[in-house]
Amino acid sequence: MVSDYDRPVSTPNPTAAILVIGDEILSGRTRDENMYHLAGVLTAHGIDLREVRIVPDDQAAIVGAVNVLRRAYDHVFTSGGIGPTHDDITADAIGAAFGVPVVVDPEADRRVRAFSEVRGMSYNSDQQRMARVPQGATLIDNPISAAPGFTLENVHVMAGVPVIFRVMVESILPALAQGRPVVSGEYRIWRPEGDIAHDLRGLAAKYDDLALGSYPSMQDGRGGTTIVVRGTDPQRVETAVAELRTVFPPE
Amino acid sequence: MVSDYDRPVSTPNPTAAILVIGDEILSGRTRDENMYHLAGVLTAHGIDLREVRIVPDDQAAIVGAVNVLRRAYDHVFTSGGIGPTHDDITADAIGAAFGVPVVVDPEADRRVRAFSEVRGMSYNSDQQRMARVPQGATLIDNPISAAPGFTLENVHVMAGVPVIFRVMVESILPALAQGRPVVSGEYRIWRPEGDIAHDLRGLAAKYDDLALGSYPSMQDGRGGTTIVVRGTDPQRVETAVAELRTVFPPE
Repeated sequence: MVSDYDRPVSTPNPTAAILVIGDEILSGRTRDENMYHLAGVLTAHGIDLREVRIVPDDQAAIVGAVNVLRRAYDHVFTSGGIGPTHDDITADAIGAAFGVPVVVDPEADRRVRAFSEVRGMSYNSDQQRMARVPQGATLIDNPISAAPGFTLENVHVMAGVPVIFRVMVESILPALAQGRPVVSGEYRIWRPEGDIAHDLRGLAAKYDDLALGSYPSMQDGRGGTTIVVRGTDPQRVETAVAELRTVFPPE
Repeated sequence: MVSDYDRPVSTPNPTAAILVIGDEILSGRTRDENMYHLAGVLTAHGIDLREVRIVPDDQAAIVGAVNVLRRAYDHVFTSGGIGPTHDDITADAIGAAFGVPVVVDPEADRRVRAFSEVRGMSYNSDQQRMARVPQGATLIDNPISAAPGFTLENVHVMAGVPVIFRVMVESILPALAQGRPVVSGEYRIWRPEGDIAHDLRGLAAKYDDLALGSYPSMQDGRGGTTIVVRGTDPQRVETAVAELRTVFPPE
């Protein structure tokens, strides 16, 4: 029953997954910001986000997810759990996933210590926890609060605090191979989905190099549909949107 | 390196996962609402949300995730892909995951047809797609736009449109076994995490029936920490928050 065009845009782009580590998201206390932010950034950079997982602050859950995702996708980006407190277990979990020890990185140690000293805080073993990375990892800069993230092979481990997460994303993005960005166009039709599905199916088959997503919406008690056209060729996307306008003329 | 208390709250509550089906989330076009909403509802109902996955509108991805999650957790809640258009493939994917055919449900057919007729729309085969469910499924009511969701064994399949998703959640919730709701208390400390980690670790070990989460934040350029205490016994949570106030007195 599933036709060929029932699939995401097919591109030769690098693929990615995001792993959010966070009890606070699963409990409903905090609404995700990092995944939403990074999804848009990856799309603009030409990296195809294929999967997101959110798991608790639990080593077995993190190790299991990391080991599946890092083998399935070109990149895995994680968010959360790299601070100094007892619930920050991401570095240990990534070490366990790769089977490597977690060690104090001298450069990370220098940065975190300097940050503490400037603020007149004594440098203790808890703060030093933030300088621990799995052996072989390279650091991801944190110009806001010093404590770095790290990259180990294709896994990029970043902070959960949104403002720090964002600067870490900015700092690693230039080094990641860039694909052809997936661009999108939209067209809004003031008819319910069921009414336009037949003609839309025809267009989806015709433009089989694009993805045509159909999103119902209600406005002023009236059912309408937004068609989102996505693809890597901006001209093709424009052509498809123009044809939507012809097939479903504005009122 | 991971201590016993580095784990989510342990409860005898039913467990759950959420599977969001949506290219529009993965592309960064749309920010998730349904997962955030349901996470809070499940916590209040005493069901422990253990994992979230977001996958594209792709049958193999949906089937793979559903078959892992339905075996690992008591409940799986899905969002998205049950409309009438070519990109609505969730019913077929769930049928494939369970190895059962997808059929037109007579009651669903009656509802969707009646909704079309009231609005003066002809009832066509695309609209009838919304009445198709995997064999053996029971319907989830949709008082807004008629097209039902469905439950098959422990998998609850709901619409992606947030207002419809929410009424579907309300309609199934009373029938789900209720656990002890996890309640939480918060305490804000005007010191950075590294400064309080040692004492906090002691408290986390002492209150090992609770989860103490530590979340750094910046306010007016000053680093602070919010401690979130979670557990099923409101009295214990209150006791722990009171002890936090003693150990880390307000300024």
